[in-house]
Amino acid sequence: MAPTQPLAVSLGDPAGIGPELIAEIWNQRGSLDLPPFAVVGGAGVLRAAARTRGIDLPVAVIDGPAEATAAFSDALPVIGGGDVPYEPGRPDEAGAKLALGSLELATSLARDGGAAGIVTLPVAKSRLASVGFEHPGQTEYLASACGRSLEDAVMMLAGPSLKAVPVTVHCPLAEVPRLLTEEMIYDKARIVHRALQRDFGIELPRLALAGLNPHAGEDGRMGNEEAVTIAPAISRLRAEGIEASGPHPADALFTHRARETYDVALAMYHDQALIPLKALDFDEGVNVTLGLPLVRTSPDHGTAFAIAGEGIADPGATIAAIRMAGEMAARRAGG
Amino acid sequence: MAPTQPLAVSLGDPAGIGPELIAEIWNQRGSLDLPPFAVVGGAGVLRAAARTRGIDLPVAVIDGPAEATAAFSDALPVIGGGDVPYEPGRPDEAGAKLALGSLELATSLARDGGAAGIVTLPVAKSRLASVGFEHPGQTEYLASACGRSLEDAVMMLAGPSLKAVPVTVHCPLAEVPRLLTEEMIYDKARIVHRALQRDFGIELPRLALAGLNPHAGEDGRMGNEEAVTIAPAISRLRAEGIEASGPHPADALFTHRARETYDVALAMYHDQALIPLKALDFDEGVNVTLGLPLVRTSPDHGTAFAIAGEGIADPGATIAAIRMAGEMAARRAGG
Repeated sequence: MAPTQPLAVSLGDPAGIGPELIAEIWNQRGSLDLPPFAVVGGAGVLRAAARTRGIDLPVAVIDGPAEATAAFSDALPVIGGGDVPYEPGRPDEAGAKLALGSLELATSLARDGGAAGIVTLPVAKSRLASVGFEHPGQTEYLASACGRSLEDAVMMLAGPSLKAVPVTVHCPLAEVPRLLTEEMIYDKARIVHRALQRDFGIELPRLALAGLNPHAGEDGRMGNEEAVTIAPAISRLRAEGIEASGPHPADALFTHRARETYDVALAMYHDQALIPLKALDFDEGVNVTLGLPLVRTSPDHGTAFAIAGEGIADPGATIAAIRMAGEMAARRAGG
Repeated sequence: MAPTQPLAVSLGDPAGIGPELIAEIWNQRGSLDLPPFAVVGGAGVLRAAARTRGIDLPVAVIDGPAEATAAFSDALPVIGGGDVPYEPGRPDEAGAKLALGSLELATSLARDGGAAGIVTLPVAKSRLASVGFEHPGQTEYLASACGRSLEDAVMMLAGPSLKAVPVTVHCPLAEVPRLLTEEMIYDKARIVHRALQRDFGIELPRLALAGLNPHAGEDGRMGNEEAVTIAPAISRLRAEGIEASGPHPADALFTHRARETYDVALAMYHDQALIPLKALDFDEGVNVTLGLPLVRTSPDHGTAFAIAGEGIADPGATIAAIRMAGEMAARRAGG
């Protein structure tokens, strides 16, 4: 089920662990059964990062995605000529500009059809902001680049044990009860439902919605958001034939037996989704953007400047991100 | 390191899974290497519950803990004559009264020294309330029975992968930011620190404190409780020589690598502690009460009325609770 086109991989911050991981993965391509991909920018960075892991990396600088699949077996295809000196663990302005240019070009390749999808390697948000990036994160940028509102782009975390979507994301915990609305839960659940059908091939996705409060409020004794906000959203979803259950006590929702009863958990806030995902699947956690016209995945970890260039960063999450993007793209292409 | 006295086990709701689990565990005593224990009340319930698991249970009705250790190898020792008909899955008032009487007698035996500690089997809180129990849960009752304030009794969840303490517990999520104070964090952390030394034999316990907000607030961009409330508590703890770290992003705190760096995680709210514990260790999770003059543990699951009497309930958490209570009691006795 390989996509017909290659994936575009954005370089991420060149001082982070992204470049060495993608070099390592290309080097292991023979045993990994991966869809072909091309990195956007940073040929010199990639060669230098590869050396820190003992890899003599052949790079094929190409003009566009159309040349990538043919080049992939013999060299890591790299689109575009931007580059900086490789200084692992020492992010700077030039590196942030390279990361931003790579993200922008990779996005346009995925959006306009030359690439099957985009896999974004880790950036440092504060660094990108310092060179004029005006979005809170890459997900928000991608929604904007696709001409969509932020609400249309839904972040899902996916690992071998769990898929989880936080309904509210990057806000103080104190604001969650106020921000959480029936409409928001309903809208995000519908996007998730459609994406699990279209991108993951699940015909009748089972959605399990968490409560907000301990024990899901215990019949109103510890909060009423379950009754006022979450249960009505579930009723609307079910009335449309969507298999939505809950609100479930959040601590009961992620046990190994509970996880067998649903395809995706909808969490009410960031850590309610991210805690179980990272506890269970840290080395294989993928951040997937649902609801956009383009396919986008990312390893669910940061730049890890502290260990960049040490040769110890684990490529598992990036491998999983590439595989997942390839499978999603193939399903969209009808493969 | 067996305690010199037996543990007192409170029966829990007779219609729940507690009686069949304790019968099963006694029956497996030969292969489990457990400290001796006596159940308080419910001899008939225990015999009947044992039969649902195919066990012909010998029961030794005894007058007090002093007779339990000698009796334990040949029969399940039961203290006190209270009993009800066994009707699994159908809780009623008589059963709630039996559960309450068992809890009260087991507590007094542990408090006054006849028993090495207490292991409480699951009760239904709403059922206990209907027969006059005025405490939110068993932990609160135990604090009161020991003449302590509720703040002195700290709930810790412990499994093979993780020990975690929620600083705020049974309150709506919306109230957590307001309830959380530097003093509360500091006080609970000190109780946890002393208990890990005294009851768990950890000379210099490493405490890891979670942040409240996503990414621990990301330098104040998503909430300021980390700077205003949590970090000052950590500073005070460290000034006293307690090895306290944080505030850590909560989603990073429970990865397998992070868990190797501390002995106990302090979570700021119920689900921040309970989600990872149950995701990782559901079948072996123990609820431990720290800070009281008596040793108390409990399996970290409920009455499970829906499966009571079916013979399928997993005894793992109760076995772990009995073992842990035995080890804690032995350490307190200087064993």
